[in-house]
Amino acid sequence: MGKSEITREALLDAALYEASLSGIARLTLAPVAAAAGRSKGGLLRHFPSKESLQIAVLEHALSSFRHYVLEPALPMPSGLPRLRAIMENWLSWTERAGLPGGCPILSSQYAFDDRDSAVCAHVREAWTSWQSYLRRQASKAQEASQLPPGLTPEALAMLMVGLKATAQMESRLLKDDDANRRALRLFDHLTGRAEPAN
Amino acid sequence: MGKSEITREALLDAALYEASLSGIARLTLAPVAAAAGRSKGGLLRHFPSKESLQIAVLEHALSSFRHYVLEPALPMPSGLPRLRAIMENWLSWTERAGLPGGCPILSSQYAFDDRDSAVCAHVREAWTSWQSYLRRQASKAQEASQLPPGLTPEALAMLMVGLKATAQMESRLLKDDDANRRALRLFDHLTGRAEPAN
Repeated sequence: MGKSEITREALLDAALYEASLSGIARLTLAPVAAAAGRSKGGLLRHFPSKESLQIAVLEHALSSFRHYVLEPALPMPSGLPRLRAIMENWLSWTERAGLPGGCPILSSQYAFDDRDSAVCAHVREAWTSWQSYLRRQASKAQEASQLPPGLTPEALAMLMVGLKATAQMESRLLKDDDANRRALRLFDHLTGRAEPAN
Repeated sequence: MGKSEITREALLDAALYEASLSGIARLTLAPVAAAAGRSKGGLLRHFPSKESLQIAVLEHALSSFRHYVLEPALPMPSGLPRLRAIMENWLSWTERAGLPGGCPILSSQYAFDDRDSAVCAHVREAWTSWQSYLRRQASKAQEASQLPPGLTPEALAMLMVGLKATAQMESRLLKDDDANRRALRLFDHLTGRAEPAN
């Protein structure tokens, strides 16, 4: 990487950290420049507008998400074993990625659902693509008879997003250290493993 | 109600509408004053700070939530029948309440989980109290043998928050008109009714 790319990476790391705390929607140039130890003018050379910074941070978050959530699950057989690994990785990825404020991709769901902007289109595209992947894996699970009768691929994908959302709420807002474990047990219970979902 | 209380109600209605679109965390005095057709000075007489406005709007949202979600479910027998009515009402309440941007209480989960402020304490209190109510009803369902074996009260409460969160994401961000119906069928499927969860 050249010097300019290294600077860009450092700025994006600082911005992603900020986005974890405040959300991508509330990300503005000045605090990111301050956190990265740069001038706002220096930041503007890399990201000429707030929107371009928000889109770049979303892409940076997605890249980190793939690294911590998806890639470690790819060696697992497709279908339910891979979905279970994804669920487990997804619940804990921000801790492993050093993002203290939780998942900025999750909070972006709500922050961008009423607007028509380039950032909004990127958020929608990211979620559409992730939902499609989950549904495809859930279809493979269904074809391999790994799902309980009546649990459709669409429903399983919906359930996984919901478990992540509620686990983040219970662990971050309500400070319940047991929430991620409870969500994973609930996933196991609802996909047909025998453990009680407590 | 006196004139001052009527004005306060009108301001809160306008603020709640704005909060549905932008979130309580991004609510500021000037746009609310403009939406209510008042001066910022007039608004400041009722809400002397952004924080006091945000807390009042959260309380206003909770009051509407109780009216549209909880109260119509109270005639149902406690336990699973009441939880099922709550789930159905919860999925659709913002449409019935005329809030075009979805549930501002749901989006407040993420917006206030990293801060230590009076608004944050109110958001945490609201979610703690709602979670306790859901768990209590789920315990009654369990005592009445209305739950499938292994589904604990804590897990059922978690599931309900998750279904609301993911249904809002799929319907609002991904514009899927079938999301609320899918979430309710998934609730039925996972609590032991016979319908396939598609």
